Amino acid sequence: MTSPHTNTSPAVARTMTTWHRMITDSDLSNLATIVHPDAVFRSPMAVTPYASRDALMLALTTVSHVLQDFAYHRQFATADGNDVVLEFSARVGDRTLKGVDVIRFDDDGLIVEFEVMIRPLSGLQALGAEMGARLGAALPAFKQVPLP
Amino acid sequence: MTSPHTNTSPAVARTMTTWHRMITDSDLSNLATIVHPDAVFRSPMAVTPYASRDALMLALTTVSHVLQDFAYHRQFATADGNDVVLEFSARVGDRTLKGVDVIRFDDDGLIVEFEVMIRPLSGLQALGAEMGARLGAALPAFKQVPLP
Repeated sequence: MTSPHTNTSPAVARTMTTWHRMITDSDLSNLATIVHPDAVFRSPMAVTPYASRDALMLALTTVSHVLQDFAYHRQFATADGNDVVLEFSARVGDRTLKGVDVIRFDDDGLIVEFEVMIRPLSGLQALGAEMGARLGAALPAFKQVPLP
Repeated sequence: MTSPHTNTSPAVARTMTTWHRMITDSDLSNLATIVHPDAVFRSPMAVTPYASRDALMLALTTVSHVLQDFAYHRQFATADGNDVVLEFSARVGDRTLKGVDVIRFDDDGLIVEFEVMIRPLSGLQALGAEMGARLGAALPAFKQVPLP
């Protein structure tokens, strides 16, 4: 196993420690403390990114309730230690899925971009259906950021 | 920009240099030289992984013909430098997509596992339709590896 925080910058390592504790405790109530106000969320479902800390917090809080048996595995980082990929596995109903969180940070270690990718198709569709049922139009109501 | 090879082990860096040259030259004819015979391919579409170098080579060669405007961006690595994530963007017809290659290597730098994730749903579906049209049952005919 890779030690989780040895390949990131100190500021990112602090944020990652906080993030992993939030996930372990199933308590995202302090998520705002590690997210930049102008953060962008790139959904595994939609092509258009959503802007603002509130959009990202809504997405992450909702998905944390949808994904069962959630577990992180490997952590990857860029050579400068400022961007991170977290590999995970989870389940939605009887569908198993794998995924990655691709996270970009600012110099203070605040999350400025959070992109999620999921495989396989059946897992992504199951997640999308559950997210849609819970969120409705709440997430699309947030400001959509021009591509890319 | 992150220097592409500073966060991997020397054996992995050599394989990555070869891989990137193959992609730049659009020539995967020597792919077998960097893939372990027992390599496993984890498709963005299917839950079940496919076994063998031949399966992985068929998948990668086919997808390289389907993805247009393909470009790699950030490279991420585990702290030990033995596993890599490559971020990419591409297009299938009028659908844009983002993706990651999650690659595991053996001690000699040979690829032993190649996992692909794609977002958004529309891009994944467009890729799946094109891959299905070109591959038919050729990929599923390969040995399927028990989960996970």
